[in-house]
Amino acid sequence: MSQRVNAYAAMQAGEPLVPFEYELPALGSDDVDIEVLHCGICHSDLSMINNDWGFSAYPLVAGHEVIGRVKAVGDHVNHIQVGDHVGLGWQAGYCMDCGQCMSGHHNTCPTAEMTIVGRHGGFADHVRAKAAALFVLPQGIDVATAGPLLCGGITVFAPIAEHVSPTDQVAVIGIGGLGHLAIKFLNKWGCEVTAVTRSEDKAEEAKKMGAHHVVTPQALESGEAGLGRFNMVLSTVNVAMNWAAILETLAPRGRIHSVGAVDVPLEIPIFPLIMGERSIGASPVGSPNAINTMLQFAARHHITPDTEHFPMDSINEALAHLKSGKARYRVVLDR
Amino acid sequence: MSQRVNAYAAMQAGEPLVPFEYELPALGSDDVDIEVLHCGICHSDLSMINNDWGFSAYPLVAGHEVIGRVKAVGDHVNHIQVGDHVGLGWQAGYCMDCGQCMSGHHNTCPTAEMTIVGRHGGFADHVRAKAAALFVLPQGIDVATAGPLLCGGITVFAPIAEHVSPTDQVAVIGIGGLGHLAIKFLNKWGCEVTAVTRSEDKAEEAKKMGAHHVVTPQALESGEAGLGRFNMVLSTVNVAMNWAAILETLAPRGRIHSVGAVDVPLEIPIFPLIMGERSIGASPVGSPNAINTMLQFAARHHITPDTEHFPMDSINEALAHLKSGKARYRVVLDR
Repeated sequence: MSQRVNAYAAMQAGEPLVPFEYELPALGSDDVDIEVLHCGICHSDLSMINNDWGFSAYPLVAGHEVIGRVKAVGDHVNHIQVGDHVGLGWQAGYCMDCGQCMSGHHNTCPTAEMTIVGRHGGFADHVRAKAAALFVLPQGIDVATAGPLLCGGITVFAPIAEHVSPTDQVAVIGIGGLGHLAIKFLNKWGCEVTAVTRSEDKAEEAKKMGAHHVVTPQALESGEAGLGRFNMVLSTVNVAMNWAAILETLAPRGRIHSVGAVDVPLEIPIFPLIMGERSIGASPVGSPNAINTMLQFAARHHITPDTEHFPMDSINEALAHLKSGKARYRVVLDR
Repeated sequence: MSQRVNAYAAMQAGEPLVPFEYELPALGSDDVDIEVLHCGICHSDLSMINNDWGFSAYPLVAGHEVIGRVKAVGDHVNHIQVGDHVGLGWQAGYCMDCGQCMSGHHNTCPTAEMTIVGRHGGFADHVRAKAAALFVLPQGIDVATAGPLLCGGITVFAPIAEHVSPTDQVAVIGIGGLGHLAIKFLNKWGCEVTAVTRSEDKAEEAKKMGAHHVVTPQALESGEAGLGRFNMVLSTVNVAMNWAAILETLAPRGRIHSVGAVDVPLEIPIFPLIMGERSIGASPVGSPNAINTMLQFAARHHITPDTEHFPMDSINEALAHLKSGKARYRVVLDR
């Protein structure tokens, strides 16, 4: 049985989205079809629509922070049933055989499928994914607001889970879709949290989200916010920072961790790296296990994305709102 | 009781060393005086003699890979006795009170004393250090050749101990004083070891030291030596490499680790860092505990630096030999 899909697609780079229909072929044995209920909009949807990274193919249906209800499952699918509420993020499937998959690091599987690359995503009434890339929402997760956890949330949760101790001091650069969730996670993780933003109105809100301190990027880079202080500086922005200066704000063995796709190389002087035994790291989205762990942590601590909602048929308006920089803090489309 | 010291000092930046006498004051309660038996020459001795880093003070007595016999110990010294054979490296004392010292990370103590900065080092018949920065040589360590372990050795051993698993593939860039010891350690650590050198005669020797493969820097940077292969690329050179290309040779979650004092910033593109969840790190010498661990590991596995020996009164000849790039692989002065 095939599935007709009503979607919104960019027909060419940068164009407004238009209604677009396509047909999903017969369900594969590991496939799951989802009826989309909500779909967050991530900056990488804009990047893909605009072909900023050079590998977009049109028509392009973006959308990869999907919450939906399972409509059909393939023969081999065990852990998901029709009717379940599930989430789908940036990745829509894994090979399941390679060393990365077999060691729990599916997110670095070299042939992982991406939800909106070479296939169609969640700006639609239906979307298909492999069962391994779908996550049944635990009790306590709000269906309407959970979408942004699946990409923005896991992108910051994964490095926290991997590298941050509850006794750490952590600074978060950029209070947007990713940064605001990082602050909420880090507060419940037990850390002393410093939000870094140039926006005065976000400063107040960041404190309500759980930041113990709010400083400007200038105060961070000048050392006014502290030298040798942070165990991690988590950067969620895609602009170049003064990394040499920020290195000096790290405690010994501290780490700058970037999840922002900065398009100029990071310039890293070696002496502060050597003398403080510091490091620079980066990461994509997390593994399936990290996503499940995040959902349970979020449910236990009542962590929800701050969302603004648009009906899916106002998708171009919603995209314009995100582009304007006024989103507080993640835009979600409702069907 | 004071101690008269006969040393070799640079009286000005870059000048040949000349005999120089100075007096050590009365022994402090945590001090130990050593009669120097052997002292390795490290590239950082040359850098300090030449004031390359801008903080040298003259007269300057370099030398920080010291093996000696203990001649006197202060009142509070318990773990070292007169007559013991001990080693002394880049650091000559720690505050013992700060968070770094109290967590075993004395090497990043912000007020750690450095053996040849603001005090006189081991190109001499005697040298003084704090007891905590001295290491009794275990059974099986050869007194004549052990000196280079104390700086060159620990500089590569510390990141191996911290970040490398015996199942890892590791590439070592640069087969000199540090690199040749890295190869020996990594072989006994259980790793698959790739030496990276442009020197054909060193290629053969690197294999004898324990490298399973030898490649040129060009083969590493071009990807010919493998893409997505190395868990760590350990760089011991102080010249800029094509770090963007080397990032692509790292396995997922792999690390470029530099112990070379490159004077141009590392240029690190973010995409290969993000997609492979990779990192860039660096480190100085290791902690006292790491030094003791290294000495025991070296004794157990019969790991000795490859050394060339000069009498201490031929010190200028020995320095010239090191400068010429012909040292195989560490120059040691004998008294």
